This record gives sequence, C-alpha cells and structure tokens, in this order.
Amino acid sequence: MAVTYLSEPVSFKEYHQNIIDRVTIRLEDSLPSRWQIPSSLREAMLYSLMAGGKRMRPLLVVAACEALEGSLEAAYDAACAVEMVHTYSLIHDDLPAMDNDDYRRGKLTNHKVFGEATAILAGDALLTHAFYLIAQISRSHGVPAERVVEITMDLSELSGPRGMVGGQVADMEGEQGLTELSQLEYIHLHKTSDLIMFSLLAGGRIAGANASQLEALRTFGRKLGLAFQIQDDILDIVGDETKLGKKTQSDIKQEKVTYPYFIGLEASRDEVRRLTDEAKAAILEADFKYPSRLLEIADYLMNRDH
Amino acid sequence: MAVTYLSEPVSFKEYHQNIIDRVTIRLEDSLPSRWQIPSSLREAMLYSLMAGGKRMRPLLVVAACEALEGSLEAAYDAACAVEMVHTYSLIHDDLPAMDNDDYRRGKLTNHKVFGEATAILAGDALLTHAFYLIAQISRSHGVPAERVVEITMDLSELSGPRGMVGGQVADMEGEQGLTELSQLEYIHLHKTSDLIMFSLLAGGRIAGANASQLEALRTFGRKLGLAFQIQDDILDIVGDETKLGKKTQSDIKQEKVTYPYFIGLEASRDEVRRLTDEAKAAILEADFKYPSRLLEIADYLMNRDH
Repeated sequence: MAVTYLSEPVSFKEYHQNIIDRVTIRLEDSLPSRWQIPSSLREAMLYSLMAGGKRMRPLLVVAACEALEGSLEAAYDAACAVEMVHTYSLIHDDLPAMDNDDYRRGKLTNHKVFGEATAILAGDALLTHAFYLIAQISRSHGVPAERVVEITMDLSELSGPRGMVGGQVADMEGEQGLTELSQLEYIHLHKTSDLIMFSLLAGGRIAGANASQLEALRTFGRKLGLAFQIQDDILDIVGDETKLGKKTQSDIKQEKVTYPYFIGLEASRDEVRRLTDEAKAAILEADFKYPSRLLEIADYLMNRDH
Repeated sequence: MAVTYLSEPVSFKEYHQNIIDRVTIRLEDSLPSRWQIPSSLREAMLYSLMAGGKRMRPLLVVAACEALEGSLEAAYDAACAVEMVHTYSLIHDDLPAMDNDDYRRGKLTNHKVFGEATAILAGDALLTHAFYLIAQISRSHGVPAERVVEITMDLSELSGPRGMVGGQVADMEGEQGLTELSQLEYIHLHKTSDLIMFSLLAGGRIAGANASQLEALRTFGRKLGLAFQIQDDILDIVGDETKLGKKTQSDIKQEKVTYPYFIGLEASRDEVRRLTDEAKAAILEADFKYPSRLLEIADYLMNRDH
C-alpha cells in the first residue's frame, strides 16, 4: 500500500485515526507469509502487535517526518519498527517474572495465550525484527545509508541498557522503595521518554532534519514523555475506568510511588502543563516547515482522559 | 586497545587464543563506566559475557575479515556484537520457562544469580546493544554506511523470527516429537548455522567482499554450522565429561532426537566430514586472498573433542 500525504486538511482526530489504520495494516504485512517462520511464533508476534492502542509512537514518527516533508513510506516503516519495540517491551513486562499481568487492554496477555517460552521468544523476535525494518528503509525507500545508520544507533541507544531497558530495571528495583523525585524522573525518562524521543528523531532523520531541529525533537520528546507518564499517574487516581479500559487506583493499591505521591495531584497537573508548554516552545523555536501536528499531539496528550 | 594484524605467522591454537583474549577485553570495555546503566543490569550483562567459551563466532568474524585484509578494528566490534547476540540467546534459553538450566559452562546461569526478571532484561539489553556496536562501526572505523546497513539487515534477519529465534521455537516445539531428519535440519540450520553465517558475512562485508565471496561465506557458514551441531550431538554420546565441562548422554536421558538417533553414530561422523569438506571447497573456489584461517577453523571444529 503506497502512503501519500493527505490531500485535504483534516481534524487531528481524523489525522490520528488515519495513522492508526495505516500502521495497523503495515504491521500486519510486516511478516510476509512467504517468510518461513514457525506459525506459533508468527501468531504470538501478531497477537500483541494487533492488540490496538493509541499508536502514539508511530504518530510521532509520522508527524516529525511530515514536519519536514520527508518520505512517508520510510516513516511508516520506522513507525512499525518502534511499535514493535514498544510491543516487545510490553510482552516481557507482563511476564510472571516481571509484572505478572494476565490482561492488557482488555485482552489476555501474550504468555497467557501462548505460554511463557513463546512469549519471551516473540518479544525477542519483535525487537530483532524492528532493526530489520529500519535497515531496509535505505534499500526500499532511498533514505541515505548514513541516516539509516544514525537511526539504528538511536534505536539501540534509546531502547537498550542506557535507555528503555535501563529504565525498566530501575523501575523494577525501585518499586515502593523510591525516596526522591529524581529517582522517579530517571525511571520515567528512560522507561517512557526514550522511545518517544526515538520516534521523533527517526521521523526527523528520515526527513533530513538539521542539528538544531534534531535537538528540538529531542527536547520535545523528553518533556512530552515525562508529561505523558505523569498524566498516566494522574489518570490512575482520577480517571474513568470505562474510558481507560483498566482499573484505576492500581498504583495506590500496589503502593507504587508516583508523581502525585511526591508532589500532590494539583502540582502534578501543573507539571504536565508546564512540560507540555516547554515541549511546544522547543518545536516553535526550531525551523520546522509544518510544526502544527507536533503541537496538536502535545495538546492531545495533555488533555487525554484515557 | 588498537588491534593490528599479527606480524608473525602463529599456530592456529595461538591465533585462536589471541582472538579469545582480545574479544574478552573488548567485551569488558563495551559498556563504558561513564554510561549510566543500573549496576545490576551491567553486572548481569557482563557476568554472562565473561563466562568464557570458545568465542567461535568472533573467531569467524575476524578470520573472514582477515581473508580479505579488512579493518580488524571494525571486525572486533562486529565480533563483540555477535557474541552479545549469542550470549543473550543462551541467557533466555536457560530460563525456567525454557530449558530451565541451573548451570552453564560450570557456572550458575544468569537467572540463578540475578533473578529471572533481571536475566530477561539483561538478554534484551545485550541483543539491543549488539546493534549499537554494529551501527557505530561506520562512524568509528570508517566502514561505508551502506555496508553497515547490510550487516544490520543480515543480523536482524539471521537472528530474528526467520533465523535463530525461529529455530529456537521449532526446537522447543519439536522436542521429542520430531519424526523426520529434515525437521531436525531446519532446527540446526536456524538455531545454530544462521548466527555462524552472520559472523562470516559480517567479517566479509566489513572487508568489502564481492557477491561471489559473500555467497561462498554463506555456504561455508551453513555447512559449518550444521557440522558443528552434529558434532555436538556426537560428543554428547562419546565425549569426555571432563573435557566437555558438562554431563554426556543428556540427549538420550531427555529423549531428545538427534542426528545419531536418526542415522546412527558412524553415518553422523561421515556427515560431519562431508559437510566440512564441502564447506572448505566453497571457500577454495572463491577468490580469497588469505583463506587459510577459515580452512583451519573448519578442521578445528570437525576434530574438536569439546
């Protein structure tokens, strides 16, 4: 399926839905049936990839790429790659040895359906295949190899031991035992912001962003990721279970230390607003041709109720 | 540490030991202390990386690169990357949900020392960081970005769902239930040969191998990997426990279907010889400047007793 720019201006909601639909189709096509893959592995990978969600990271890849009129074909491949990395992290996170969750987004978790061994391997396979999707952008869509190498370095750095996995370990070790806000910030920055930052950088690099634009995307991602996580903490307290699709008050029940725990609900709300404003300012200061979708995403995430 | 070609001709044993030593130092340096990584994660990663072994995959990367006089600095980085992928696969393989092994190479397995959650994440981090080591070859050692992209594609293809992870799933599902030799061959080819093939291709690509040389390395790797695995099956029956550092007869006790099970011990030995000869022939037919170390490796693997 060829991906082109939308010819008519559409609302943010339509824009977002359009990206969700396209990414979902692409993800389904990302493991061609001609490839020899054990069927249980393929099923387990697709089961979690197709579990839905807001596809926030793909949204960021595409919007960052569009802000500089880059190749959408390449952006959608990078979008699928980052969704695979996100999905693998959720599958491993849900395992009995980790969070031991039976449900995610109202569906049984991967290991509850396919067994633990297959779930571990499906996660491994998704992480590995993400790098394939990135690498082939050069051959398939003519993005210069130098840019693809930079994107590969970003992905491994921001999702590896210094990035998302590091945040994951810190989160696991810190549960219930954090005494300082800076520790919680470290966890949020790595567990959540790093992959969000990667999404933006990938979209930017595909489109040939210059150094100051990349720096702006980095700042935007860091602040947006942190705001996103604090908003999650807030919604866990005041959110609507029907809209969220999960039980609220879970952090309190698990005695999990959160932003509202440290600074209170109102100050947390202020912090989300402040971070969102700063994120938007970073984008506005850099010279993007079409920054408006990035700004809309920041507002959408701040105002979301699920 | 700068890596240069050995100035004097040395025996294969010295050559191999030299590569083991250099790779071990490089692996230790691969997570610089200035990087912010949770200490338990760093320790868990290094624990398994430092557990020793024959470093066969690094040996293949370096030998393939030397066969065409490529950059050794780059080869050693790719060697560390493939050793990280191999190590992650062992850590995940040993988990309770998989093979549930308490010991490997005489040492406690990763999850026995660090717990299951950290072991899963240490494996994830090693896999992710391997792609970083590959990607930075371009910037650090001047290997053209196009080659680095090809190496990245090879690694993700040969260690992902179509490669090593696919073989792992097939192995897990097939245990005790295989009825045909071709099924066993599929498992060996993907679980073992694919990463061996990657090692050779990476060394070759770094050195700028042409299409026929890459094809020869592919054939060499496929046959060598299969021979290696059959030799493993044979040693499990006739090997010396002291030399192997593990109990023999484990396949029989676990009722695991092997090459000797299907075709008998003598025919299995013949198969190892035949595959090794064919592997060597493939290298000799292509135009390598210095093929001798590759040929020595084939003989070494065929004749090994551990």
